Amino acid sequence: MERNPHAERLAEIIGAANVLTSPEDKAPFLTEWRDLYQGVTPMVLRPGSTEDVSAVMKYASQNDLKIVPQGGNTGLVGGQIPLETGDEIVLSLGRMNKVRAVDPDGFTITVESGVILETLQNEAEKVDRLFPLALGSQGSCQIGGNISSNAGGTAVLAYGNTRDLVLGLEVVMPNGDVWNGLRTLRKDNTGYDLKQLFIGAEGTLGIITAASLKLFPKPKKLEAAFVGLADPQAALKLFSTAKAQAGPVLTGFEIMPRVGVEFCLSHLDGARDPLEAPHEWYVLMELSSGSEAFPVRDLLESILGEAFEGGLVEDAAFAQSMQQVQDFWHIRHGMSEVQKAEGGSIKHDVSVPVASIPAFLEEAIAAVTDFVPNCRPVPFGHLGDGNIHFNVSQPVGADKEAYLEKWDAMNEIVHGIVANFNGSISAEHGIGRLKRDLLKGVKSELELDLMQRIKDAFDPKGLVNPGRVL
Amino acid sequence: MERNPHAERLAEIIGAANVLTSPEDKAPFLTEWRDLYQGVTPMVLRPGSTEDVSAVMKYASQNDLKIVPQGGNTGLVGGQIPLETGDEIVLSLGRMNKVRAVDPDGFTITVESGVILETLQNEAEKVDRLFPLALGSQGSCQIGGNISSNAGGTAVLAYGNTRDLVLGLEVVMPNGDVWNGLRTLRKDNTGYDLKQLFIGAEGTLGIITAASLKLFPKPKKLEAAFVGLADPQAALKLFSTAKAQAGPVLTGFEIMPRVGVEFCLSHLDGARDPLEAPHEWYVLMELSSGSEAFPVRDLLESILGEAFEGGLVEDAAFAQSMQQVQDFWHIRHGMSEVQKAEGGSIKHDVSVPVASIPAFLEEAIAAVTDFVPNCRPVPFGHLGDGNIHFNVSQPVGADKEAYLEKWDAMNEIVHGIVANFNGSISAEHGIGRLKRDLLKGVKSELELDLMQRIKDAFDPKGLVNPGRVL
Repeated sequence: MERNPHAERLAEIIGAANVLTSPEDKAPFLTEWRDLYQGVTPMVLRPGSTEDVSAVMKYASQNDLKIVPQGGNTGLVGGQIPLETGDEIVLSLGRMNKVRAVDPDGFTITVESGVILETLQNEAEKVDRLFPLALGSQGSCQIGGNISSNAGGTAVLAYGNTRDLVLGLEVVMPNGDVWNGLRTLRKDNTGYDLKQLFIGAEGTLGIITAASLKLFPKPKKLEAAFVGLADPQAALKLFSTAKAQAGPVLTGFEIMPRVGVEFCLSHLDGARDPLEAPHEWYVLMELSSGSEAFPVRDLLESILGEAFEGGLVEDAAFAQSMQQVQDFWHIRHGMSEVQKAEGGSIKHDVSVPVASIPAFLEEAIAAVTDFVPNCRPVPFGHLGDGNIHFNVSQPVGADKEAYLEKWDAMNEIVHGIVANFNGSISAEHGIGRLKRDLLKGVKSELELDLMQRIKDAFDPKGLVNPGRVL
Repeated sequence: MERNPHAERLAEIIGAANVLTSPEDKAPFLTEWRDLYQGVTPMVLRPGSTEDVSAVMKYASQNDLKIVPQGGNTGLVGGQIPLETGDEIVLSLGRMNKVRAVDPDGFTITVESGVILETLQNEAEKVDRLFPLALGSQGSCQIGGNISSNAGGTAVLAYGNTRDLVLGLEVVMPNGDVWNGLRTLRKDNTGYDLKQLFIGAEGTLGIITAASLKLFPKPKKLEAAFVGLADPQAALKLFSTAKAQAGPVLTGFEIMPRVGVEFCLSHLDGARDPLEAPHEWYVLMELSSGSEAFPVRDLLESILGEAFEGGLVEDAAFAQSMQQVQDFWHIRHGMSEVQKAEGGSIKHDVSVPVASIPAFLEEAIAAVTDFVPNCRPVPFGHLGDGNIHFNVSQPVGADKEAYLEKWDAMNEIVHGIVANFNGSISAEHGIGRLKRDLLKGVKSELELDLMQRIKDAFDPKGLVNPGRVL
């Protein structure tokens, strides 16, 4: 195999062991778990320090080499996989995995970008604190990737998106310059807040090498209920009431349709119906508090008792143990996976204003049912964040391939409705390569132009993660 | 008086009544309440709609006219006052004062930028919601200015800075283009988060004309205590304990030195010492909850009882009524004003990491006392945000003018210490004209360069609020 000349120079910079060029070494960095993309790259670089990253980027910039930064390789839109053209170099941040500082009194932690999310959660727990970001992929995703994609997850309702958790960043610019923006300040009004640009930029403006993050009190009490109700309008009213009464103690509010629960009962190990009779819609509601003094269970019962009397809620099961809390969440977390057993599923990760969820669901369900008669919409997700995973299972007995061919056309229908509600076609997962072409349809020319101006100002040669987002 | 030719053209665009050119009409827009700046302008424009602002900016851009946007004219760093050169036109947003939408179920409100903060608070209250931003100037400051300066205030501990309250913006770009980023989404990962750039940019990147903002449950219960303790280290430990136990229910944590309380007792109407014996330092601690169910008083007593037993706290007075809560805050809010009665006061609005507050105070107090023997440091403020108003009163009987001549030199000493703690020389008030030259001393060349690149990308002709921030 021909040795790439740049590989030799880069081996001098970060050590030969950290420049992977053999197919077997490179393989884990070139596919992602949905198998949507198969990348090709001359080499994978594994820098171990900010200085390494800086030296690599300086070399890349001088030699016009395209760089694709990669964290835990769990992204869902292909942003982290090099193009099939084979001229993009993967920069894997996994060796940059040091915890630089933990400050429990100041409620902050500073880590390098290759730290795995679960490790970060554990580091916080060691000092009786919470790092609230929680995702399905937390055992392998890295915080640098979470920040670059502004990850959402299940704790957004009370703690916000990843953006809300970041106090400061260290970033290596496309030309190798190092910006030390690693601040742990809660207040700093000295000019433009540059870190905001790198958060959610999917690696297109620079390479995040470290971050200072917020910590929170560790929840001491947690209660959950599985609620049956007639329609999304009732769920919205329940949400509004619950949030008004519980405020930040309301840490989960997830909506699910009956059909999704039925899929779980049929295909998910250990799933059983928490309620005796079936209901058209369900809400999984969770309250938790860092204070032992808070009567969390009383509040949950009082909110739901009132809602029941007001006719908002048809029935509710209260978790009697942590095991039962987990059983409730098991159904919610299984809802995506079980759709596989029912044939093809066309997916959308969308958000609309919270109060528009009932109207959006009504319109979108009608539209897709009109488009594919007898299709089975399974819209579920974070009602409290306005974020619905609007998935649509094929009609019973239909041809899977033929159904999945309607993917783009159905996306267009649903995204059109989302646009009418001033919503987002990518609430959590970002743009990457998957949704790049869709962006032109949903953003104004001016907004795309402003984004491009920023890209040009920070990465004039267009060498970091080219073709992603923009 | 000679009529400015641009005034006639602009009068055709937004109406003659909205182009102020007489000295008496212009006067209120040309001074600010600290009397630090006296501006000169050919005219003050008062557009009434986004279309008006767009047309004005287009005209200004085509004719190379410099524009200084102004809200309620309450800024503390001179950003909103036109230069003495007399060639900057004031664009006052006060007529853009419509509430466009209120959504209590979705916990959002959309308003034009000229809406006065207190009006916004009242609109939220009408639907049993809270808009938490609270400032001394809330009766006259406008939300557009709050956003442009990323205002802080007394509710930051639980609700964040203004930045954290913004969901979407409408902005007129320097060339007149209108960016409609008025979204009320909680989650939206479709490209760069442009609104973040305009927040805190002090009007240097475009004109904010409207904003979608977060609302919160209205607090139903509120308790406060006035606590005496030995030193800032004890205050920090109390903060850490209180936050760990109360989490978001801890809505206020302010530190004050004995000398500041004594100034209040001497000069502030209605102030009386809440505690029997004097203490070196004080903390005003407030807990509040949107939930009637939360035992706020019990928690406050339990936290302070434990701290007392642990020797952290010397004494504490619990407010027995809302009047007493207000009496406690009266002392805190009076602390800036009473310094006038004690002669000259040299001021700093700084922040450091929360856990560094004790060490910062020790060093800074020693340094200024070394610089001016017998000076009287009165550092007070938002300990929970790491934000200290480090004010230093003159020695008793010293010459006020001679003391105030040391302003810049003392600033340099204090800001140097702030820099060693990786802190900020403007925690709340921004840069404007007042601190523009200081910025070069505290930001890296790269950071200033990145800021300039953004400015050039958004305002290539440098016509909006030139010479502010950068």
